[in-house]
Amino acid sequence: MTTAFRGGVDVGGTKIQAVVTGRGGKVLGEARRGTPRAGGPEQVAEDIALAVAEAATNAGVRVRELASVGVGVPGSIDPAAGVVLKAANIEGWGEPYAVGPALAKRLGVPVGVGNDVTVAVEAERRFGAGRGVRSFLGVFWGTGIGGGLVVDGRQLEGRGSAGELGHVCVKPGGRRCACGLRGCVEAYAGRGSLEQRAKHEARKRKTVLFELARKRERETLTSGIWIRALEAGDVVARTLIDEAVAALGVAIGSAVNLLDVELVVLGGGLGERLGPTWLALLEKAAGRHTFFSPPPRYALAVLGDQGGAIGASLLKPVT
Amino acid sequence: MTTAFRGGVDVGGTKIQAVVTGRGGKVLGEARRGTPRAGGPEQVAEDIALAVAEAATNAGVRVRELASVGVGVPGSIDPAAGVVLKAANIEGWGEPYAVGPALAKRLGVPVGVGNDVTVAVEAERRFGAGRGVRSFLGVFWGTGIGGGLVVDGRQLEGRGSAGELGHVCVKPGGRRCACGLRGCVEAYAGRGSLEQRAKHEARKRKTVLFELARKRERETLTSGIWIRALEAGDVVARTLIDEAVAALGVAIGSAVNLLDVELVVLGGGLGERLGPTWLALLEKAAGRHTFFSPPPRYALAVLGDQGGAIGASLLKPVT
Repeated sequence: MTTAFRGGVDVGGTKIQAVVTGRGGKVLGEARRGTPRAGGPEQVAEDIALAVAEAATNAGVRVRELASVGVGVPGSIDPAAGVVLKAANIEGWGEPYAVGPALAKRLGVPVGVGNDVTVAVEAERRFGAGRGVRSFLGVFWGTGIGGGLVVDGRQLEGRGSAGELGHVCVKPGGRRCACGLRGCVEAYAGRGSLEQRAKHEARKRKTVLFELARKRERETLTSGIWIRALEAGDVVARTLIDEAVAALGVAIGSAVNLLDVELVVLGGGLGERLGPTWLALLEKAAGRHTFFSPPPRYALAVLGDQGGAIGASLLKPVT
Repeated sequence: MTTAFRGGVDVGGTKIQAVVTGRGGKVLGEARRGTPRAGGPEQVAEDIALAVAEAATNAGVRVRELASVGVGVPGSIDPAAGVVLKAANIEGWGEPYAVGPALAKRLGVPVGVGNDVTVAVEAERRFGAGRGVRSFLGVFWGTGIGGGLVVDGRQLEGRGSAGELGHVCVKPGGRRCACGLRGCVEAYAGRGSLEQRAKHEARKRKTVLFELARKRERETLTSGIWIRALEAGDVVARTLIDEAVAALGVAIGSAVNLLDVELVVLGGGLGERLGPTWLALLEKAAGRHTFFSPPPRYALAVLGDQGGAIGASLLKPVT
């Protein structure tokens, strides 16, 4: 039996991460590109194809040797058609686009499409922190707040989009979220929202956040910038991250009370980079709203930046 | 093939409801008794046995002809042992009690034990409002707030107690719940909490609630009393129920965002008696916190007072 090589791509708001995996989800080659800021979904598809080709080269295989390519995209998906109905956080991708068929034509291999958080949770379930665990809540803390629910050994789908932890209400009548609702945890803890609030605070208080961004020539406050500001004792960064942790604690506690999971897995750019100390603070914050005793265990996602792409490589192709 | 007769019992804080069911969960006989207020779980077990015997008589069968008896109890259960670890809202039942084996001995038939909300949700899934639906959230609005989660065609268990909708946080730092946490929806919407708050309000404002209770010789504010007070235009009742609906809306919205269910089923003493008008208000309140468009449908539970007992009759016996 020969092991199939599979391509997997995680498309994010700032970067496209591609991998080629072998047996057991092992990464044999990878590539990374910035997400194009112009040209819409057609340009994104072109850059995905280039990233796959580069990852294949790095793995020592040809693209046409890949058994399949899977693509994880933030947003709502029609997996049967390989269509992204609406991509979140990707510029110019507001309309449905059949990225699966477009890529299959370009690459000459079958392509599957899934939600970015769903595939990242699947990767952690199969090969990461959730391995061997019957139930866990995946919390992906980045630009937005993503969630995935594994209960009784399977990831929940609901009508197709279960796991919207980011839109659990943590403060009725509170801050307006990008989704239009009020008081969503994402409006307090998502990196996008944190940046907005930091801009607002910077008018009133001293903060190193934007100075760090300028020095590192970043247009946005990346996870790395937040970490450095916290390490530098920046009061604005600390206050906002403390509030974010408190808000996440409410949402995670509520989700735990509903699902009675064994484990909470924290991933995402901010989640992973904040690391064990903040994981412990988050566990404490969630504990204040957790009904069950003993509460679930807490662990960091282990597949890191590549988790989404590894999970995408598991997607069943449809085209 | 002969149809098995099964006994089912729903043990509540105020009453014990027993049924004998036949094919398709059809109720062939029923009986109802007040939950004993003294004598602890042993006395409760004795009254359960009496209720089963009476229901069997009404169904025209003998207790020993029953294939099994199932008992739904509010609280946490060890189903494999037939033990109620801790019963909520039943006086004198704070310690574990092996109600399954005790009843099996007394009745001479095998007995299964389950959580009261879990069995009621199972009854609605099999024979009620959730029939043919792949995913729904069951909301049982009574003395407490119970929840059940059916996703992808099965009721979720988690570590054994999934569905604690009543302890979803709707106001961080808010009212203290009987469970010890702050801001749980049950602290705003459970009938127990509503009564406490009504007592507090009655010191400041005119209300017919306690007058109705005296006239009807009730020690507590039953669902019927709340309904009458609302019908009489009682401002305290209206204010408290409005707040309860708003709180339930937050919790249901959050649960819907996590689970992406097709349907929300409202049951429980208050839920069912408040009926379609309040169901519509609850749907509107939950809509303010619902991420998905279209939102799920809303329906009332259809098995009424007997739902829990019917669901209990489906329990697999273990003794």
